[in-house]
Amino acid sequence: MAVDVDALLTGLGRGERRALARLLTVIEDGRPEQLRQVVAALFPQTGHARVIGVTGSPGVGKSTLTDAAATRLRAAGRSVAVLAVDPSSPFSGGALLGDRVRMQGHHADPDVFIRSMASRGHLGGLAFATPQAVMVMDAAGFDDVIVETVGVGQSEVEVAANADTTLVAIAPGMGDSIQAAKAGILEVADAFVINKADHGGAGKLESELRGMLELGHATAGEDDEVSAWWPPIVRTVAVRGEGMDEVMAVLDQHTQHLDDRGERERRVRARAVHAIREIALEQVRLRFARFDRGGDPVLEELADRVVARELDPYAAADRLLDALEGGEA
Amino acid sequence: MAVDVDALLTGLGRGERRALARLLTVIEDGRPEQLRQVVAALFPQTGHARVIGVTGSPGVGKSTLTDAAATRLRAAGRSVAVLAVDPSSPFSGGALLGDRVRMQGHHADPDVFIRSMASRGHLGGLAFATPQAVMVMDAAGFDDVIVETVGVGQSEVEVAANADTTLVAIAPGMGDSIQAAKAGILEVADAFVINKADHGGAGKLESELRGMLELGHATAGEDDEVSAWWPPIVRTVAVRGEGMDEVMAVLDQHTQHLDDRGERERRVRARAVHAIREIALEQVRLRFARFDRGGDPVLEELADRVVARELDPYAAADRLLDALEGGEA
Repeated sequence: MAVDVDALLTGLGRGERRALARLLTVIEDGRPEQLRQVVAALFPQTGHARVIGVTGSPGVGKSTLTDAAATRLRAAGRSVAVLAVDPSSPFSGGALLGDRVRMQGHHADPDVFIRSMASRGHLGGLAFATPQAVMVMDAAGFDDVIVETVGVGQSEVEVAANADTTLVAIAPGMGDSIQAAKAGILEVADAFVINKADHGGAGKLESELRGMLELGHATAGEDDEVSAWWPPIVRTVAVRGEGMDEVMAVLDQHTQHLDDRGERERRVRARAVHAIREIALEQVRLRFARFDRGGDPVLEELADRVVARELDPYAAADRLLDALEGGEA
Repeated sequence: MAVDVDALLTGLGRGERRALARLLTVIEDGRPEQLRQVVAALFPQTGHARVIGVTGSPGVGKSTLTDAAATRLRAAGRSVAVLAVDPSSPFSGGALLGDRVRMQGHHADPDVFIRSMASRGHLGGLAFATPQAVMVMDAAGFDDVIVETVGVGQSEVEVAANADTTLVAIAPGMGDSIQAAKAGILEVADAFVINKADHGGAGKLESELRGMLELGHATAGEDDEVSAWWPPIVRTVAVRGEGMDEVMAVLDQHTQHLDDRGERERRVRARAVHAIREIALEQVRLRFARFDRGGDPVLEELADRVVARELDPYAAADRLLDALEGGEA
């Protein structure tokens, strides 16, 4: 079943949601030539959307928070796309199920689009696929693109951090909430949301968090470029919409901060560098995979010699790169 | 403070635990030339250890399970190294603290070595660093190397799966236990451990898991090479050592299965291919990083043109690779 990418791109230009959904499937499937075609066609139309990252460990209520934020942004007249990045495998099919369960409140609204995405096709995973999915949503004309990820693995953190504004969600009563939050996401937070703040322990959690932030601030030193923005902490009960006014205010303040300091341009540029590098790495991975799948004699022989301990893996990697660059692939 | 890698390698050869610990810090720090030196020197001495992966979401009791397994393996006369891979950032310093908290029961035993590792120095992260740390532990002569990771992100799953036998731990009462377990780790499990089996809901959890496994088995089809081994499910209360006899039996059965079918060789070879490729990718990443940090005119110009939307990221990536391969870096 060949996908007619040209037709989908035309459909997207006409504002067809179905074309948008299918283009995201093209991104998810990760066929190299189709990806290249989609990005090349849509990239000139990007740059409008504000990208908001939402991350945190499982169970803190990220999707409820995201849905509540989408509701508020809609009320302010903004169109919203949500990309819920799901590290599930094709085996579980979790992403598709999730989409149906969510979005109950928005299903009649054409200016909200929610999509879960797994990283099934491509070798580079989320770090590679997510920015391209965001480009498609941006090109589709949404004012805000919310990227929601489980902030536990390093790829997931990287993905969420690659936003204009990154919200880190934690919750009281989740034993590992702060522990998981430590896993690289404290540094990337532009704001913290303590969700489920009606549960006991929200005050204690906030104190702990403030302690960790002060420690980090002391460590980072005076000339840290982030230090001009001290990440605010907002308490919410997202399921009832409580605290969402404050979340919206924080988003606007941070957007203003980015604009005032030329920081938004810096982030756009950092995203460009990130995208270029991840795509270049993916090209290298694809060449290696071709080595691999085709039973390429170069990699076969290198693997044999490593297994036999005639070559160490570094020496083998050098020869693999030589073969690659010599065009023997 | 230059590290005298030669002296450390000599110390390791004499069985000094301090040298082992410092070589693991060298791996963790990720200075390219030192990594290369350590791996080249130690690789010929590897291949003895059985590598056991232990993965699962936060809170299921992975470290308790790992410690209980270490105790049993020691009782069977085997020496054990544990590598607890911690995706924490340098900011949190979680890894160092964790080492002190753990290992209470083993601190007087020279044949148990436990080490947490963050992935701070290198660009390729856990997928790159962990196999090299395992090599160091293998070369140090341990019979078993247990690699423990939080099985949520894709890198973490990949790391755990890169073992001879992979145990996936889940627990009742953890809302997201199975949900997280779906995230790519069902396929990689050689056995499941339902820990905290004395809590309510262990039976229900086991039924759900069996249902998912049957679904996966049906999907995978007849000729799936994994289908000859149906992953057993063991219930444990690791904190009291309950069920650990069964865990040991499953480890031995799976080791036997690998040996009978020549599957262990296949896994050793797959690890070699993985290591070669990850190291080669790291070399490419290092060259890109050099572009990046040095304000290289090639990447600067490409980023400018992408920000200006004159080039799309794919076209820019092509030019970056051309520059790299043309030796302009």
